[in-house]
Amino acid sequence: MITEEQVLERIRRARERRPRVREERITLAHGAGGKATQSLVEAVFVDAFRNPALEGLGDGAVLGVDGARLAFTTDSYVVSPLFFPGGDIGDLAVNGTVNDLAVCGARPLYLSAGFILEEGFPVADLERIVASMAAAATRAGVHIVTGDTKVVGRGKADGCYVSTAGVGVLERPLTLDATAVRPGDAVLVSGPIGEHGVTVMLARGELEIEADLTSDTAPLNDLVAALLDAVPAVRVLRDATRGGVATVLNEIAQSARTAIVVDEAAVPIRPMVAGACELLGIDPLYVACEGRFVAVVDGAHADAALTALRTRSLGEHAAVIGHVQDDPPGLVLARTAFGGTRVVDTLVGDPLPRIC
Amino acid sequence: MITEEQVLERIRRARERRPRVREERITLAHGAGGKATQSLVEAVFVDAFRNPALEGLGDGAVLGVDGARLAFTTDSYVVSPLFFPGGDIGDLAVNGTVNDLAVCGARPLYLSAGFILEEGFPVADLERIVASMAAAATRAGVHIVTGDTKVVGRGKADGCYVSTAGVGVLERPLTLDATAVRPGDAVLVSGPIGEHGVTVMLARGELEIEADLTSDTAPLNDLVAALLDAVPAVRVLRDATRGGVATVLNEIAQSARTAIVVDEAAVPIRPMVAGACELLGIDPLYVACEGRFVAVVDGAHADAALTALRTRSLGEHAAVIGHVQDDPPGLVLARTAFGGTRVVDTLVGDPLPRIC
Repeated sequence: MITEEQVLERIRRARERRPRVREERITLAHGAGGKATQSLVEAVFVDAFRNPALEGLGDGAVLGVDGARLAFTTDSYVVSPLFFPGGDIGDLAVNGTVNDLAVCGARPLYLSAGFILEEGFPVADLERIVASMAAAATRAGVHIVTGDTKVVGRGKADGCYVSTAGVGVLERPLTLDATAVRPGDAVLVSGPIGEHGVTVMLARGELEIEADLTSDTAPLNDLVAALLDAVPAVRVLRDATRGGVATVLNEIAQSARTAIVVDEAAVPIRPMVAGACELLGIDPLYVACEGRFVAVVDGAHADAALTALRTRSLGEHAAVIGHVQDDPPGLVLARTAFGGTRVVDTLVGDPLPRIC
Repeated sequence: MITEEQVLERIRRARERRPRVREERITLAHGAGGKATQSLVEAVFVDAFRNPALEGLGDGAVLGVDGARLAFTTDSYVVSPLFFPGGDIGDLAVNGTVNDLAVCGARPLYLSAGFILEEGFPVADLERIVASMAAAATRAGVHIVTGDTKVVGRGKADGCYVSTAGVGVLERPLTLDATAVRPGDAVLVSGPIGEHGVTVMLARGELEIEADLTSDTAPLNDLVAALLDAVPAVRVLRDATRGGVATVLNEIAQSARTAIVVDEAAVPIRPMVAGACELLGIDPLYVACEGRFVAVVDGAHADAALTALRTRSLGEHAAVIGHVQDDPPGLVLARTAFGGTRVVDTLVGDPLPRIC
């Protein structure tokens, strides 16, 4: 048993350090992946759990275990609705964890699955989610090897929440790290952005927009492997989920203390996503993808990277969307179609809650 | 993207096989760890995710990764109330995953932590939970290396749910497996039973019982290591969480196709737990512990096992509570204080919901 004093002492010590969470209560923005999430994670979690693996704050931790180099990651899924065009919470949970491992440079191997079910949830819906998880695991070449099920009373959940964790092995000698990013590097995305977020938003039916869109949820491990096979000079990979491409680029720019300049016209985006974002009043750079990653590679290898990605169907619309430069350090800038430049800040608030 | 047909085909194939879940909707009993959980897990999860590691259905999966022998496990925590005498959801989540790894015979190394927070949840409560997780991790000698935070709207959770997953390494050449259990083996528990479940139940304040009880939540890795150092002939270890000692013994008896006979008078239980169970009308053998394990060892080594456990403070009240015999295979029997014998079946229903 941990004594009350030990716990209070830890809270006291944590409070003495910076940064702090200013809010007294959790808001939806704390779950959006942007500024509020970042301050919550840094102030509450990193500070308390302090260790080198966690401080990397990537999509997963890279660990040495008994001579093996492993990646380990977790995500919880609370998407609403549970079923949406192109996927459901099940394949989302499998692909999300597979992708977090893949962008660590690991080959995803094993997944765990934890379910929090609301009393009264239809067993048939659970079967559908589980079948979709099994199909996604087969497609990604991973096994779901351990799990847990909890049930809470009516009104204490929203049907079904899924938590997945994953273990992968790093078979390549590379280290992917945002601090390795340097001026002259090229920034790529693996495909059109924002489809997942907009699809889920429209599936809620609150907006009277109909669009023939499906989520981009997909396992990225093969596409990542194709890129790493072709281009050894990959600096860092990140999957562009919550907070979208803009949030990922901000995190990279801050870690690397460089500027990232995005050419808006070069960003692949389907007209229907662009149109829906305009109606919703959201910048598509902030909209979650669940089957796209951002890669920063040595500028000299940008073409080779692009070619490698485009040979795969998941990467056929990959594009170089920008470059890294010295100034202003830590900032992401976008060159607009009109020739202007704007700052693309970290996400504030949560324009699309419960998207994943 | 997985096609709709692939998903439907998987559901159809799964339905053709046995066992089935008879209920159309999830009930609290599906989360209790007893019969309903077992049928849900077997019918829905094991069938869909079919693979050898999962079919072991222990407290975690044992995996070979890049030459290393790893254990991997997960649990979600939905305990209500979040704070209770002797612990909170935070140390419960850390100790629970540490213990699942320990009873696989692994040395717990790394944990992940996923949070599902309800909008409006006090940040101070989150800080308290996280500090308690950090203290529990330090005590158990593990690192929390990766995590995730999601926020859902008001009324879509109950404050805070925590999911932990864990990775450990199997440094010993042993294989712990319920199918290795054989007639003549001795059954031990590592300490007094039922304290966690009764403490949480009383902390809800619905019953007007006051008792000076605290949860037994604790990391069991050192105690397990002490046992394994002293007694190589340990057949199987299980931590007695949801469904209590009775459920664990039933799972072992079914896997081993042997009978287990428990001597009720030998089961260590604090008078206050026994008294509260009597008032609640619950058999303490079904009440969750969060810092106790059941061990089955070669009968010839029962004394050595007991001595090894009792040298540690967490094991000072360890006891031999029964033995394994041939008949009737798959059943757990209890010899009562009055000299009678009763069948201790797998738990039906959920007498103590949301205990972990």
